[in-house]
Amino acid sequence: MSRLLEEHGIRIGRMAPGATNSITDVDGVMVGQSTIIEGESIRTGVTAIVPHPGNVFYEKVKAAAMTINGFGKAVGLPQINEFGTIETPILLTNTLNVGKVSDALISWVLEHYQLSDRPIVSINPVVAECNDSYLNDIQGRHVKREHVFHALDSASKNPVEEGVVGAGAGISAFEFKSGIGSASRIVRLGREDYTVGVLSLPNFGRREELVIKGVPIGLVLRDCERGIGEHEQGSIVIVIATDIPLSHRQLVRIANRASFGLARTGGTSHNTSGEFVIAFSTADRVPADPARIFLEERRLNDAHSAINTVFQAVIEAVEESILSALFSAKPLGGRDRHQRVSLKFPAI
Amino acid sequence: MSRLLEEHGIRIGRMAPGATNSITDVDGVMVGQSTIIEGESIRTGVTAIVPHPGNVFYEKVKAAAMTINGFGKAVGLPQINEFGTIETPILLTNTLNVGKVSDALISWVLEHYQLSDRPIVSINPVVAECNDSYLNDIQGRHVKREHVFHALDSASKNPVEEGVVGAGAGISAFEFKSGIGSASRIVRLGREDYTVGVLSLPNFGRREELVIKGVPIGLVLRDCERGIGEHEQGSIVIVIATDIPLSHRQLVRIANRASFGLARTGGTSHNTSGEFVIAFSTADRVPADPARIFLEERRLNDAHSAINTVFQAVIEAVEESILSALFSAKPLGGRDRHQRVSLKFPAI
Amino acid sequence: MSRLLEEHGIRIGRMAPGATNSITDVDGVMVGQSTIIEGESIRTGVTAIVPHPGNVFYEKVKAAAMTINGFGKAVGLPQINEFGTIETPILLTNTLNVGKVSDALISWVLEHYQLSDRPIVSINPVVAECNDSYLNDIQGRHVKREHVFHALDSASKNPVEEGVVGAGAGISAFEFKSGIGSASRIVRLGREDYTVGVLSLPNFGRREELVIKGVPIGLVLRDCERGIGEHEQGSIVIVIATDIPLSHRQLVRIANRASFGLARTGGTSHNTSGEFVIAFSTADRVPADPARIFLEERRLNDAHSAINTVFQAVIEAVEESILSALFSAKPLGGRDRHQRVSLKFPAI
Amino acid sequence: MSRLLEEHGIRIGRMAPGATNSITDVDGVMVGQSTIIEGESIRTGVTAIVPHPGNVFYEKVKAAAMTINGFGKAVGLPQINEFGTIETPILLTNTLNVGKVSDALISWVLEHYQLSDRPIVSINPVVAECNDSYLNDIQGRHVKREHVFHALDSASKNPVEEGVVGAGAGISAFEFKSGIGSASRIVRLGREDYTVGVLSLPNFGRREELVIKGVPIGLVLRDCERGIGEHEQGSIVIVIATDIPLSHRQLVRIANRASFGLARTGGTSHNTSGEFVIAFSTADRVPADPARIFLEERRLNDAHSAINTVFQAVIEAVEESILSALFSAKPLGGRDRHQRVSLKFPAI
Repeated sequence: MSRLLEEHGIRIGRMAPGATNSITDVDGVMVGQSTIIEGESIRTGVTAIVPHPGNVFYEKVKAAAMTINGFGKAVGLPQINEFGTIETPILLTNTLNVGKVSDALISWVLEHYQLSDRPIVSINPVVAECNDSYLNDIQGRHVKREHVFHALDSASKNPVEEGVVGAGAGISAFEFKSGIGSASRIVRLGREDYTVGVLSLPNFGRREELVIKGVPIGLVLRDCERGIGEHEQGSIVIVIATDIPLSHRQLVRIANRASFGLARTGGTSHNTSGEFVIAFSTADRVPADPARIFLEERRLNDAHSAINTVFQAVIEAVEESILSALFSAKPLGGRDRHQRVSLKFPAI
Repeated sequence: MSRLLEEHGIRIGRMAPGATNSITDVDGVMVGQSTIIEGESIRTGVTAIVPHPGNVFYEKVKAAAMTINGFGKAVGLPQINEFGTIETPILLTNTLNVGKVSDALISWVLEHYQLSDRPIVSINPVVAECNDSYLNDIQGRHVKREHVFHALDSASKNPVEEGVVGAGAGISAFEFKSGIGSASRIVRLGREDYTVGVLSLPNFGRREELVIKGVPIGLVLRDCERGIGEHEQGSIVIVIATDIPLSHRQLVRIANRASFGLARTGGTSHNTSGEFVIAFSTADRVPADPARIFLEERRLNDAHSAINTVFQAVIEAVEESILSALFSAKPLGGRDRHQRVSLKFPAI
Repeated sequence: MSRLLEEHGIRIGRMAPGATNSITDVDGVMVGQSTIIEGESIRTGVTAIVPHPGNVFYEKVKAAAMTINGFGKAVGLPQINEFGTIETPILLTNTLNVGKVSDALISWVLEHYQLSDRPIVSINPVVAECNDSYLNDIQGRHVKREHVFHALDSASKNPVEEGVVGAGAGISAFEFKSGIGSASRIVRLGREDYTVGVLSLPNFGRREELVIKGVPIGLVLRDCERGIGEHEQGSIVIVIATDIPLSHRQLVRIANRASFGLARTGGTSHNTSGEFVIAFSTADRVPADPARIFLEERRLNDAHSAINTVFQAVIEAVEESILSALFSAKPLGGRDRHQRVSLKFPAI
Repeated sequence: MSRLLEEHGIRIGRMAPGATNSITDVDGVMVGQSTIIEGESIRTGVTAIVPHPGNVFYEKVKAAAMTINGFGKAVGLPQINEFGTIETPILLTNTLNVGKVSDALISWVLEHYQLSDRPIVSINPVVAECNDSYLNDIQGRHVKREHVFHALDSASKNPVEEGVVGAGAGISAFEFKSGIGSASRIVRLGREDYTVGVLSLPNFGRREELVIKGVPIGLVLRDCERGIGEHEQGSIVIVIATDIPLSHRQLVRIANRASFGLARTGGTSHNTSGEFVIAFSTADRVPADPARIFLEERRLNDAHSAINTVFQAVIEAVEESILSALFSAKPLGGRDRHQRVSLKFPAI
C-alpha cells in the first residue's frame, strides 16, 4: 500500500495502483494474518493469502511457482507446476515452522473445504517462509494451529495490513526492520480494467545495497545503526495475484519478471537468500470435476503487446511492495538484545 | 506402421492404431522425406513433419519440447517452451547438418509462409538430429537446400514411409540397421475419436539391450553380426502429434511419457545418446494476430481419467515406432566397409 | 533384497547385486523404520534413510532431486538442487503426514546434529510421501514424533526390511499389496568396486499394467481379487544412494534414469501418481565450513564409458526394488473392509 | 570497457574492474569480430568469444546456459547443461544467420581442432543471436563463412572493441543505437585475484525504460529522436566468463544473477525479447579423454560468503556492459531510411 511511500513523495513506476494499492484489490483475493509477539524473543507469525472466497479445493486457481534462489523451504511447488493449479490458501511463516503450518493447513482444508460425500485424501498445502531468527527464537517454533486458523479465518478483502505483522513480524531487509508489503497495478486490456497485486515478505539484503528509485540510499545510511550480532539468513517470498486470464505457461512468464522488481530495490539474491515466486490467476477457476472431459478457457494472447504491460505491472508492484514493507515497519527489538531500526519511523 | 510387426505376430500394447498406424493419421499432419544415398559413403537425408497444410507461421500449433538426455544439437527448443508453439515444420537430419538444414528451412518459410504485406524478421526453425556417422560421411554435410525443399514440398498425408529413408538413411539402433519409424493410437474422448501419432528416429542402444515385448532378444542375438569398427554416438528424436486439445503444460506432460515407451524397447539413455521429444497438438491453432487480446481455448481436463489413456497411447506409439523402424530397415553398408545387418531382412 | 525374487527364479538385469542387495550396501547408508499398524484402519509408518553415520548437517552429502510427475507433496527439493546437497536424513511417510514428519525431523536434527557453539537456524528437511489411503485412515495423520524418532534412532546397516513396514505399511502397487523394496548393484570402476543402492516405495499402477521381466503378468492376473472400492491415488518415491563420486549435475543424470527402471515394471506415470527421485552420493562430503574458500573434489568422468554402467545399475536396481516390494509384501486388510492380496503370499 | 562511462563520470557498482574492463581480462579468453556494413541496408556481423587459446574441443570449459526469456534462437544450450561444458567458441550473430553461422563454426572446428587420428563426428556449436532487422536487411542473411572464420581467426586478448562492431553492427537498445559492450570485475578470493568478465549484445527496451545509475533518463529523453517505422523485436545475449573454479551448478547460479544487472538498466524482458545467458569458467578444463575414469576438480565453496562477491561482480559487469554498449555506439542509419541516434555521440 503506497500511502506511506506517497507521503514521502515516492512513486514507483508509471502505472496506476488499484483502489487500496494492495493484493486484495484483485477480485476475490483475501488476506489474513496472525502476529505473534510475546516477551522479548518471540516475533513471528502467519500470513494467509486466500485466492477466492469459495471452495478453493474444488475450484482451484491456475498458478505457477518459480524459484529465483532455491535456498528455501517452500512446500507445494512441484504440484503447482505439474497441474498448474493451487488448491489451498497460500501461507507464509518462518523457516522452521513450515512443517507445523503445513499440517495445520491440512486440518483447516479438511474442516472448511471437504464435502460430506467426497472425502479428501490428498492435499497440496502451499507454504513459504522467511528466516526471522535475527529477532525471533526460531527454534521455539511458536506458531500454533490456532494462529494458522486465525490467519485463515480472519482473511478479508480489507487493504493488506503491512509492516510488523503476520509472517513479517520478525523479519528484516537491508538490515532495517521489514515486514509484510503489498502493492497493486491496474492493467487495461481492451475495454476492461484488470488488476495485478503483489504481497511480499522481504527479508534480504545488506544495508549498503538498498536502492530507492535508483538512489543508492543504502550507501548513505551504511553506518547508521545496523544491529548487533550475526546477520540472519535472508530470503523473499513474492506472491502475485491477478484476475487476468492466463495459462500456466503465462503465469510462469510473469513469475519470471518478479526478479526484475526485486533487482530494482538493490536485491542481488545472496547465496543464502531463498527466493520464491508464486503467481496465480483468479480468472478461470479449474473445477476438481472428474466428469468433464474438456475445459473451455480464455487466456491473454502472447502476440498482443498487452503482455508487456502485465510484465511492467508485476515489476512495479514487486518493487513497491518491498519498499512498502520497509516504510511500514516500525523498529523492533528481539532475542538477545538484537535491535532493528526502521527506515522511516523514529527509533524505539 | 505396424504391418511388418503384425506380419510377425507382434502387437504392441492394448490400444487400437489409427488407419495407417503412422503419424499422418493425425488430422492435418503431413510427412515428406529426402533420402540421400550415393556411392559408398553417403547415407543421410531429411525428414519433414508438417503440422498442418495451412500457413504454420501464421497459424502456429501448440507445442512442447522435452529433453531426456541433452547430448544433442536440436535447435528451436527454448522458444517452443516459452511461447508454447511451433511456427515451422519440424525437420530431422544428421548431427552436422543441423546448421545447413536450419538455414534452408528459413528460406523455405520465407518463400512459402511470408505474406506480401507482413515481412517476417524472426523465425524459429525446429530441427533435430541423429548421428549417422557409422555408415555416412558425416563431415561431408551432404544435405543441400534442395533436399530440404524436396522433403517439405513432397510432404503428404500418405502413410509414413519407414526404414532406410529420409533422416533415417544412415542410422542404427541396437547395432541393427534402423531408420524412420511411426505408429499411432486412437483415443476415445467422450463421443469422439482422437489420434496420437508418433514418428521416431531411433539411433541408440547396444545389441544386448534390445527388448521386444519383454523378450530380451538382444541377448539372444548378441553375437550375430554387429558390424565392425567403433560404435557411433547414438540418439533418438521422438515427435508426438495429436489432435487432442492440450495446453502447453499438458504437452510437456505427454512428452514426459515418451521415455517410458523408449525404456520398453530396452533403451537406457546412454551418456552420448541425445534424446529429445517434441510434442504438438493441431487442435487449437494459435494465430500470429497481434490485434486479438484474448484467445478462447479448449483443453483436456487433467482431472478426468482420460489423460491416462493419452499417456498410454503415447507410450505404446513410441514403443511401436521404434520397433517399426527396426523391422522396416533393410541391411545397408556404408563408409569404410561398415555394415549394418537388419533385424528382419536377410543380409545383403 | 532379491532373495524372494531369486527363490522364484527371477533375476533382474545383468549386473551383480551387493552383499545384501539393498540400499544399505552403500558405504555409510543406514535405514530405520517405524511401522504403525493398529486396529482395523491404521496402516502407515515412517522410513528413514540416513546418508551416513556422522553429522549429516555439518557433513552434507551431494544430492539431486528429480520430478517424474509432480503430483506429490515431497518437501526439500528446491534446496537440494540449488546447493546440490542434503543436510538431513530422508524420510518417507504418507501424503498427509508430511508436515508433521517434517516438523519432527527438525526436532531430531536440532537434538542430534546441533553443536553447542553453532545454533542452527535453518534446516531443509527432506520428506517424500505416498498415499496409503486405500487401507489407512489417512486423515487421522497417525504418525507421531516418537515414530519419526524411532525410525531415525533405529537406523542401521542391516539389510533393509522390505514389504509391509515403515512408510510401506499401507501402500499398494498394481492393486497388489506393496511396501518397501530395495536392491543394489556393484559397479566396477578402475580397480575398485562401488555400489549403487535403491530404496523405493511403489504405490502405483493398475493390475493389468504389471510386467515382470517382460511378461505382462498383470494381464493374466487381471481378474484375480483386486480389492473393493475406489482406487487410491498412486505415486512412487525412489531414493538412489551411491558411493561413486558424482557432481550434482551427474546425480541429476542418474536420477533421470530411474524412470527407465520404473517403465520396465509396467509403470506409466499416471496423472495422479506423484513420482519423485532423490539421488545422493556419500563419496565427497560437503562440509558446512564457511572458512574454506575452495573445495577439492573428485568425480566420475562423463567421457569415460563407465557412466553407462552406472546408468544401467540405477535402472536395474530401480526395477528390482519395485518387484522386491511386491514379492515381500504380505496381504493386508484395512479401513472400510478394504483388502489387498499379495502377489506371492497366500491370501489372508 | 568503462572508459567512455568514466569520461562521463559514470561508475557502475562498488567493485574494481580488471585491466581493460572487458571480458578479455579473464585469463585465456579472446574475442574476435567481423563487422559487415555495406551499402544502405547491410548492417550485421559476427562476434566470437574463444574460451582459451588451446584446443577447446579436446579441452572443454565448464559452462552453463540459462534462459531469461526463451523467445530466441540460441543453439547449443541443451548439451551445455547436460555435460556442463562448451566445446566450441561462442558466436553471436543475427537471428536469421544462426544456421549459416553454426555450419561455418562446424567447418572451423573441423579445420582447427580436429586431430588427424581422432575424427570428430559430433560437434555442439554454440551460437546466439539478436535481431538487427531495424537497420539491417535481415532476410538477406549476409554473414558468410569467411566472416565467421575472420572473427574466429582474429580473436585476440586485446581489449574488446565495443559499439557498432561484430554482431552489434545493426542492433539497438532503448531505441538508441547499441552494439557490443563489455566489462569486468576483480574478485579477491583468499590471497588471489580472479576475474569475472561479461560481453553483452543488448538489443532490447523502449526509450522510456532506460535507467542509468538509477536515473530514469529514458523518460527525460523520451521525445528525442526515436527513429521511424516499426520497432524491431528485441533480445539480449549475455556471455559471462571467469577464471574462478566453479561447478556447472554454480555456473547456473551465477548465470541466474545476470537478470539482476539487466534489470538495473531498466530492462523488463519484453515478450519478444529473447534473453539468454551463457556462463563459463576457464579454471578447470575438462579433457575429452575417455581413458580417465575420475577427474580431480576444485570449486568455490558455496558455504563461504565469497560467492556473494561473485554474484555482485556478475551483476555489476552485466549492468556496465549494457551501458558501455550504448555509450560506445555511434549513430547509424540503415535500411528503408531507418535511423538510430546515439546516446552519446552527436547525431549523424
